[in-house]
Amino acid sequence: MAIGIDVGGTGTKFGIVDRDGNVLFTGEISTKKHAEVSTFIEELYSAVSEIIEKAGGVGRIKGIGMGAPNGNFYTGTIEYAPNLPWKGIVPLAKLVEGKFNLPVALTNDANAAAIGEMMYGAAKGMKDYIMITLGTGVGSGIVANGKLIYGHDGFAGEIGHTIVIPDGRLHPGTGKHGSLESYASATGVRYTAIEMLEKSVLPSTLRDIPQDQLDSKKVYEAAIAGDEIAKQVYEFTGKILGLALANAVMFSSPEAIVLFGGLTKAGDLILKPTREHMEANLIQVFQNKVKLLISHLKESDAAILGASALVWEMK
Amino acid sequence: MAIGIDVGGTGTKFGIVDRDGNVLFTGEISTKKHAEVSTFIEELYSAVSEIIEKAGGVGRIKGIGMGAPNGNFYTGTIEYAPNLPWKGIVPLAKLVEGKFNLPVALTNDANAAAIGEMMYGAAKGMKDYIMITLGTGVGSGIVANGKLIYGHDGFAGEIGHTIVIPDGRLHPGTGKHGSLESYASATGVRYTAIEMLEKSVLPSTLRDIPQDQLDSKKVYEAAIAGDEIAKQVYEFTGKILGLALANAVMFSSPEAIVLFGGLTKAGDLILKPTREHMEANLIQVFQNKVKLLISHLKESDAAILGASALVWEMK
Repeated sequence: MAIGIDVGGTGTKFGIVDRDGNVLFTGEISTKKHAEVSTFIEELYSAVSEIIEKAGGVGRIKGIGMGAPNGNFYTGTIEYAPNLPWKGIVPLAKLVEGKFNLPVALTNDANAAAIGEMMYGAAKGMKDYIMITLGTGVGSGIVANGKLIYGHDGFAGEIGHTIVIPDGRLHPGTGKHGSLESYASATGVRYTAIEMLEKSVLPSTLRDIPQDQLDSKKVYEAAIAGDEIAKQVYEFTGKILGLALANAVMFSSPEAIVLFGGLTKAGDLILKPTREHMEANLIQVFQNKVKLLISHLKESDAAILGASALVWEMK
Repeated sequence: MAIGIDVGGTGTKFGIVDRDGNVLFTGEISTKKHAEVSTFIEELYSAVSEIIEKAGGVGRIKGIGMGAPNGNFYTGTIEYAPNLPWKGIVPLAKLVEGKFNLPVALTNDANAAAIGEMMYGAAKGMKDYIMITLGTGVGSGIVANGKLIYGHDGFAGEIGHTIVIPDGRLHPGTGKHGSLESYASATGVRYTAIEMLEKSVLPSTLRDIPQDQLDSKKVYEAAIAGDEIAKQVYEFTGKILGLALANAVMFSSPEAIVLFGGLTKAGDLILKPTREHMEANLIQVFQNKVKLLISHLKESDAAILGASALVWEMK
């Protein structure tokens, strides 16, 4: 069996997974409350040890796979992760390895998700595909020739930070303007809604919500209830996402793009404009070829599955 | 020895290359004058046969590598190449194989150039790099994990067609707006100069040249002579190219980007703004890491070398 640990900005989820991708035991601790990585490792060890016992002891565990923002597969470090409490370069894999006395593989969360999709999900059997995670941020994992692209330094696959609209919206975390993440994330959807409500005179139920309570979930609810502005928010978001996906396709020509995360719950509201604008920006040779898929892994399991899948790839 | 054939819109160059990358015998025929691919193959066969004899006969030749616009490695076809006289899908590799009775590998010209750089040029020993050819058009070849990315269908590596400026300049060949190629090619430089001359009131020696004679070479000559508008043309071109390269870096995190082709002759006029804008658009984790290199292969040999290198990769 393998342990999968998904380190997020708020919480850290973990689970024990068998070869067939069954998530047998799970748990969660807070990431946020640990200002120091050392206390985080302590709590993680004690919580994970509990489920290791349930699974029959550490002898049955092959290793630990971890997904974390800005996680580096080559060095096992997380580097300058804006959404984590620990600053600078943190040797996370080494710390976990030392504590658990088990081999540890680490990569960024979207790369882990991509491997999970290849082993258990929508990308089974594919050699060329792209995984896009649309959550609070936008992550990506790119597979070509059957292998994940880590790049020369282990940081490849940051499609979320590619610039889609030059001089566009400011991304407060990176200081860059017009990146995909500043539009096609939960945060981006919220900003787009605020902007549209200001610019438009159309009536909208979103106007009844105080701005600090307006979030992507409220925009989604308004959109499925038929609210015009909310629908335009998705139309606009899909336009930008579609353009970014077209660029990704012209880069590595994947068989499929697998979308995952909160934004995909909006279904055709976001998929339809995304597909339309992706196709519109592709040159002929790429048109009507690329499958746009929604991940069918259970969201609660997917991150753990993806992280655990790293263990099966260990030498 | 290997035969390398580079099929261009105007002419087709070929040569015989040894294992060390020495181009021993070369020749050239017209592509353009052959409305039918069959007569092209006939002339190619008779011209290449001459240098095969010089090289000691067909027994010394392992195979033929070909680079061609829209060339597909998997199928050996060229598909809908806008700059070639033959329309639709042409089974070029099969036709050449049938005529020469030698194994043939075909890919697009930029992919061939990327392999050439890996075997003989600036990317020797690298496992992750990107080749960008800046000529009449903009081509690219992407190498990750030591392998060229062909994508699921053989068409990967069309960075020239990625959209850099949404709703930007029309590309007459593709009908798309704002692609890298519509700015960072010889044609793009010419259009930028025309646009700048119209919009600006600055004096410029370029104003003395009739518009139909204004080309990227004239812009280059004016820029090195200190012409302000011509220098701004390169500044603008580098801004767009730098943005596109930043996006490419955040995609596959290459160790280096190798630039090749006419535009690179402008040296720092184009390199300086390109590097500056690339860095400005990269998130921290990628900054000051990626080498921006100019190919040092002789331009007359590079295409032939790259194409011939496909032969050494044959099974």
